[in-house]
Formats: sequence, structure tokens, C-alpha cells
Amino acid sequence: MINIAPVLDAVRAQRPLVHNITNYVVMNFSANALLALGASPAMVHAVDEVEDFVAISSSLVVNIGTLDAPWVKSMHLAAAKAKALGKPWVLDPVGVGATPFRLATAADLLAHSPSIVRGNAAEIMALAGTQGGSSKGVDSLASSSDAIGAAKSLALSIGGVAVASGEVDIVTDGARVAKVKGGAEMITLITGTGCALSATAAAMAAATSDRFAAAVAASALFKVAAERAAAKAKAPGSLATQFIDALYNIDAGDLAFAASIEVA
Amino acid sequence: MINIAPVLDAVRAQRPLVHNITNYVVMNFSANALLALGASPAMVHAVDEVEDFVAISSSLVVNIGTLDAPWVKSMHLAAAKAKALGKPWVLDPVGVGATPFRLATAADLLAHSPSIVRGNAAEIMALAGTQGGSSKGVDSLASSSDAIGAAKSLALSIGGVAVASGEVDIVTDGARVAKVKGGAEMITLITGTGCALSATAAAMAAATSDRFAAAVAASALFKVAAERAAAKAKAPGSLATQFIDALYNIDAGDLAFAASIEVA
Amino acid sequence: MINIAPVLDAVRAQRPLVHNITNYVVMNFSANALLALGASPAMVHAVDEVEDFVAISSSLVVNIGTLDAPWVKSMHLAAAKAKALGKPWVLDPVGVGATPFRLATAADLLAHSPSIVRGNAAEIMALAGTQGGSSKGVDSLASSSDAIGAAKSLALSIGGVAVASGEVDIVTDGARVAKVKGGAEMITLITGTGCALSATAAAMAAATSDRFAAAVAASALFKVAAERAAAKAKAPGSLATQFIDALYNIDAGDLAFAASIEVA
Repeated sequence: MINIAPVLDAVRAQRPLVHNITNYVVMNFSANALLALGASPAMVHAVDEVEDFVAISSSLVVNIGTLDAPWVKSMHLAAAKAKALGKPWVLDPVGVGATPFRLATAADLLAHSPSIVRGNAAEIMALAGTQGGSSKGVDSLASSSDAIGAAKSLALSIGGVAVASGEVDIVTDGARVAKVKGGAEMITLITGTGCALSATAAAMAAATSDRFAAAVAASALFKVAAERAAAKAKAPGSLATQFIDALYNIDAGDLAFAASIEVA
Repeated sequence: MINIAPVLDAVRAQRPLVHNITNYVVMNFSANALLALGASPAMVHAVDEVEDFVAISSSLVVNIGTLDAPWVKSMHLAAAKAKALGKPWVLDPVGVGATPFRLATAADLLAHSPSIVRGNAAEIMALAGTQGGSSKGVDSLASSSDAIGAAKSLALSIGGVAVASGEVDIVTDGARVAKVKGGAEMITLITGTGCALSATAAAMAAATSDRFAAAVAASALFKVAAERAAAKAKAPGSLATQFIDALYNIDAGDLAFAASIEVA
Repeated sequence: MINIAPVLDAVRAQRPLVHNITNYVVMNFSANALLALGASPAMVHAVDEVEDFVAISSSLVVNIGTLDAPWVKSMHLAAAKAKALGKPWVLDPVGVGATPFRLATAADLLAHSPSIVRGNAAEIMALAGTQGGSSKGVDSLASSSDAIGAAKSLALSIGGVAVASGEVDIVTDGARVAKVKGGAEMITLITGTGCALSATAAAMAAATSDRFAAAVAASALFKVAAERAAAKAKAPGSLATQFIDALYNIDAGDLAFAASIEVA
């Protein structure tokens, strides 16, 4: 039994400052998702200030979606600072299997001991060095259930939590495995929902020292919000609007009641 | 009495080209806000062309939200060019109190005599060197009324107008102080409304030589648009859509009638 | 007679991976447009990986909207790789007439033989070296009909297709000229619809070797989607949402029936 309601309540009470080093495509959507659910986002990437900003933030998310060499430098500075200060940080290895540059970057970032790694099945499998995690660009062709072994191995290697999100979200600390079900297939037609999930995991991790519960709470919130949104919207433009609205409207009691979580 | 209706009408008649050097998070929202209210936005930042682009633009906005060293160089080139050509330009010192890099950058940019500086209370207080402007990342923990003194001091030091936006927007040229009331609290859950307000002030300043009136008109338009949007939308995703719609639908007569402005 | 229905069906069946090197303003909107219509977008710009990413993509779009020197380097690497591999690529010369830097960049990129160049009338005329293509920043002051000669000349010079989009979209391979009519004027108040059209042309070109048909199919889809959206939304915020929904909802039979295309 994972008690996720208090985690969401704590986010809303504390309004954690979540430092995002993320990709250009999703910055607006991630910021709006974090604001809607009750956190305080900031996007800061300059080498001249990332360490200072980590120091005043509650948590950090590093997303490699539109990486390039100068940003990779900032990612390392920020992640190292978060580790040094004992602040939770989330790695989102977008498209990690697509090019050697991505794989090398994400693998190097693992050295800073991310609290949570969140990717789709192909990304988790590629980062764990597992065969079979084929992808199309940034989209996975594997199902998240295929990634359970890879996720457990990755979680153990970082001493943290790995999330392989998909039709079912797999969340594991290497020992326990939570399967978070529900959601709506059409949510995959909104760019950046995975990235926003990673940012949400960072918000949740700022509000509890239990990183497994934080990751489960983030996945559950997104699954329930997707369901609520899909009940109101039948095409992806409207769905994106309804999804942000749902993040705002779902209260902690709702979330605990509506979430479908199996832990093994 | 500030006659803001003609300012909005002039924007719509002239469709000024507003040159934005702004942050990645809000580029799309700022562009859509400017288009909806009747201006013509462009986002241009390369050192190879910012001066050329200032020369063909009606006004400029410089927003430090996602600054880094190469962009700071462009900001200086563009602001200096605007000053040299006598074109209005607006500085938005996002999160200026959060890191030394931001404070140094914004303080340096003041040397180019911005026509208008627009920030939240904490930003205006930090930039004016006032104690007490505490912030959480890019969000203010101070109220705009706390910033009246700082805003007056800042306005006098730049020979322009300072705006501390918040629950009440404070607009001052150092002598007069306008309080623009109204709006909707939920608007703070949409990322970039402050940034878009700065861009709107630049559009207004392109359409009148009275920079105080321009800044008041921008604040008034945003307050009224937020009210109209909040009357139709009860969560932040829908609110963002309704806000853009309202910027488009509010005519100058509406604006003058609906705005709540006190000048002292 | 151009048979566009099979092109849209092929996109949806193949779900081509479209590699975007595009501007910050429109990345989110372009990605969501591509997802809604059935393609798989990725935004990738690092010099360390653009060539690798072209190699795994179905097509490429290069958009100079927020160019700077490091990105121009990536644009050349990617376009050269696409040419070398025989993959279709689309050039969107945003604001090409506005500064010498833009004109030089776009002209240099023509050396890599884009399959399709898509711009507004002023951009096509500026790139073709025609007098009279005046612009305001990134917006055209010329009508697309003024650009027919320039578009034909440009198409012949690249051995590809040129599109001058506007109230009527002009699509030409230098011999044939298609006029794609319809749409909705208010669509010009949503930033990035032109950029998303270029990305859509890249998706269509991934699904057929007939680049003229690909460009016509993209223009027709956008015209019909704009009409459908404008029938439901009377202001630009709502229109953007409805436009994405329409891209998702229009099926190939609808498109062929509703499109207004004249070929001469």
C-alpha cells in the first residue's frame, strides 16, 4: 500500500520550487503542468547560474530532449550540485537510444545518482543496456512491461527509482514494482506529457523523502488526469487543455480513490 | 485621467512590429498574445542580426527569463541599438533576485535606459536595490503595494516607467502612480502572463510617445482580459485559451469602460 | 488531378519520423500538429547528433525562424546529410528578407537542394531575388498570387517544389502551378501555422515520392483544418485548439472532398 494522497497534499502545501533544465519543445507545457498541480516551476540553464539556482530550489529535473554541448555542461553542473546538496533530482533520458551522443550524455549523467529516472520503455531499456528497446526517434516501440527487468536493474544501479511509463507505468526501486494503470491512449498525441511527468516526479520528490511513493504519485496523478481529460475531449488539442485543467482539479482524496496501483 | 482607449486603437491601426528577445518558456504564448491583441511579433536573438532587426522594428522587449552568456550579449546589442535609434524598449528582469548572474545582467541592461521596466514586486524591489523583495525562484512573495517606493526610485533612475505587477499593478514614472486593479488570481497559474504583459507594454509603447499611458494601457488590458477569461474558465488550461480570446475580443471602448485605474 | 487522399493515408499508415530543426516559438505547436495528423516529430539540433538523426528519420524540416550561428552550422550538416541520403527535406526561410543574415543563411542552404521550400509571398520573393516582396518582420505584405513567378523560378532553381502560402497557397514545381484555396483569415493570428505547414509538408514528402503532391496535400489539409476550426471558434486562442483537433479528425476522404485545388 502506497499512500499517495499525502504526497500531493504536501506539494500543494509547500509549493516546491522545481528547477527544470529541459527541452525547448515542452518548457511551456511542463511549466503550466507544474503550476496547475501546485508546484512552482523555473527554467534555468546558464552555466553561470545553474548551481546557484539548484541551491535555492527544492528539486531538479534534467531532460535531454534538445540537448547540445553547452547544455550538457549545465546539466552536469546542476546534477552534481543537487547530489552534493542532497536534493532530489530526476533524469529524463529523452530519445536516449536514438544517437550515440544521447546515450553517452545520459550514461554520464547517471554518475550524479539521480533520485528518479523516468523514460518510456525503449529509453529505460537503452539506458540499462538491455537489448530490444527499439524506438522511433523519441517514441518507444516497446511496451513498458517489456522494461520491468531493465527498470529494476537501472534502479539498483543508481540506488534510486526507475519509471518506465507507457500504457501501464512501471515504477520500481529495484525491490518493489508498482504498476500504475489507467490513463488514455490519446495522451501520447500531446507532445511532452512524458517530460511533464518527469517534472511532476521532481515536484513530488520535493515533498516526500520516499522517492518510490513520489514517483508512484506522479504516475497516478497523470493517469487519472488523462482519464478525466479524455472523458471531456475527443481530439488532442482539446485534450491538452482538459489535461491541465484536470491536474488543477484533482484533489488528493480523488487521486487516492481513482488511482489504479498494483504493487508486487 | 489616462486615456488608454486611443493607445489600444493605435496598436490595432499600426500593427507595430515588436522585437522580442525573450525566454524559451513564453515565446509561443507571448507571440500569440501579441497577435491576438493586434501587434506583429518577431523573436530574433542572433548577435549577427539583432541590431538590424531593432532597426526595422517598432519596439523591443528584453526578457532575461532563460538568459545565458551568448543571449546576454545579444540583449546588450539590441538594447543599445534601441536607445541609439530612440525606439522604446521594455526590460523584464525575470527572477532578478534569484542569482547574482541575473542581478548583474539586469543591472547592466539598465545602462541602456529602458523605456519601461516591468516585473513582479520582488523583481522591482531587487532591481531597485530595496530590501525585502523576497521571491521563490521567479515568483514574488511580496505584494506589489510593497514595491511602490522601489518602483518610483527605479523609474526616476532610468528616466522611464516602472511597473510592479501583481494583485494590483503599480505603474509609475516616478511622479505619478497608477494603480490598475481587477484581474483574476488564477492567471498566476498560467506561465508567462507577466512576460506577455511586458511584451504588450512594448506594443503599446510603439503606438504612443506617452510611456506612462502605454504601460497603464497594457496593465489595464491584461486585467480586463483576465476577468473576462476567468468568467468563462474555472481551471488554468481553459483560462489560457480564454485569455488569448479575450485579448482579441476586447475593443478600446470596452477597455476604457471596464478598466479600474486610480492615479495619484 | 492530384490525388492527395492516399498521401494522408500513407502518413497515417507509416507514421514517418520527421526531424525538425525549427524555431523556439513554434516547436511545441509543430510537434502537436504533426502528432495530431499522424506523424512522429522530433526536435534535434546538436552538431554532435544531427547527422545521426537525419539517418534514422524519414524526412527533415529546416526552419530559420530563430537562427543563430551555432544552429546554422547544424542546419547545414543536417541538410547536407539529407541530400546525401536522398531523404526529402523542407526549407522554411522565415523572415528571409528582414536581415542580411537571414538572406545569406537561406541562400546558402539552397545549395543542399531542398525538396520543398515553403514560405509566405514576401519570403519566396526575397529568396528568389524578386523585387517587391516587402514584409513586416516575419509577416508578408505581399499576396501569394504576386509570388507565382518567384515561386516557379525558385522551384526550377532547386529542382524541387516551392510553396508561397497565403490567402491562396501557390504550389509549383516550375511547370505545374496548384492554387489551394479556402482556409480562414484568423489562422494568421496563431503563431507558427506557416511553420507547422512546412513540417507537415515534410511529413507528406516522407510518404510519397511525388513532392508536388506532398506539398499540395499539406496545404490542402491546413486549409480544410482552418475552415473546420473557424467554424467552431471565433477567437484565436480557441481557434488554435480547434485547429489541432481538426488535423486529427479530418480523414483522407474528407480531405479530398473538401479541398479546393486548381492546377494549371
